[in-house]
Amino acid sequence: MKLYGYYRSSSSYRIRIVLNVKGLEWENRPVMLSRDEHRRDEFRTINPMGFVPVLDTGKAVLGQSPAIAEYLEEAHPTPALLPADPLSRAQVRELQNLIGCDIQPLQNLRVLKHLRAEFGQDDPGVAAWCRKWIGAGFTAYEALAAKRSNDGRYSVGDSLTLADAWLVPQLYNANRFELDLTPFPTIVAIGKHCASLPPIAAAHPDRQPDAPRL
Amino acid sequence: MKLYGYYRSSSSYRIRIVLNVKGLEWENRPVMLSRDEHRRDEFRTINPMGFVPVLDTGKAVLGQSPAIAEYLEEAHPTPALLPADPLSRAQVRELQNLIGCDIQPLQNLRVLKHLRAEFGQDDPGVAAWCRKWIGAGFTAYEALAAKRSNDGRYSVGDSLTLADAWLVPQLYNANRFELDLTPFPTIVAIGKHCASLPPIAAAHPDRQPDAPRL
Repeated sequence: MKLYGYYRSSSSYRIRIVLNVKGLEWENRPVMLSRDEHRRDEFRTINPMGFVPVLDTGKAVLGQSPAIAEYLEEAHPTPALLPADPLSRAQVRELQNLIGCDIQPLQNLRVLKHLRAEFGQDDPGVAAWCRKWIGAGFTAYEALAAKRSNDGRYSVGDSLTLADAWLVPQLYNANRFELDLTPFPTIVAIGKHCASLPPIAAAHPDRQPDAPRL
Repeated sequence: MKLYGYYRSSSSYRIRIVLNVKGLEWENRPVMLSRDEHRRDEFRTINPMGFVPVLDTGKAVLGQSPAIAEYLEEAHPTPALLPADPLSRAQVRELQNLIGCDIQPLQNLRVLKHLRAEFGQDDPGVAAWCRKWIGAGFTAYEALAAKRSNDGRYSVGDSLTLADAWLVPQLYNANRFELDLTPFPTIVAIGKHCASLPPIAAAHPDRQPDAPRL
């Protein structure tokens, strides 16, 4: 399988986590958003939306990280990243969607570019916008995870799920925009534990081949 | 089951479609966003995110429309709103997420309020913002649905799926913001067919008890 992604794209980071946790072989195909490679016709042919990640399974080309993750869960069920019963699955997906729908879309690169170009926002203005929506989402995530986590290591129950695979990259973004994480002790504890797991650590932006060399 | 929603919320509209298509009994609990009822402590206790829809299944209270829809699909599998094989399911979810992640979050009420209060946008400015993101998403949806629809009645294959349940409410919003739909003939044809189906017609905002009387 080939993953078209970008080291710092949080949606790509989610899929790197899922692929690594499931122990799947995958080839990294960086799409340099910093050089607008995602806007070229060549990439639009692969994904008309022009977004990463895109997974080429060999049989089909799939966009949208939640669709890719559900596909990987169905096609490669072990280790499972969703619980067995429908209500628990819904609780995981609720947290996953809280990040994927209520937080991340507002810090998408094209949106931040629009804020600068059309609304005259500078770097601090853009960062404040990002912190506002991450903070609102994290406040709800914190309340729900505090009830659903068994022991503060994972967002739901006592094993890794798609919610954690979404949370770790969102925490990376929260740090980029310098959000104060003091009000979110449950999130911080879960993030710290999950980020330390070897397959997740290997998915970190700094460890990708397209990350800038220090 | 009780559905906390709002007649004009496109995410609530999606779940009304899913419940109706599956022929499930449900009780409508309007949360008047126009009167800020979603921001009251009483509602935050039900859903810390303060968003509709919320489904009370009797056993659990679930937020996030994609999580609710997947739950309903798993708990009430007939009629199915996802195909059987993993790749086709992913193609449906890709289109569903394209709307749910790349379009709708940018026209959420709180975001439009922020544009007015912080960036000084007036009604035309807000409508232009909405049209930009709906147009970008619809351009990609059009290209993908043109390939995946069998006969122009449904987004994928020849039966109703979650992609259609997401598309019909998004088309309602596109009309609200007066987006020119000429470039999207496949979307328009699918929307017209699906909106005419009785369970979907019954989910229309104008037919909800909390809609303003004419």
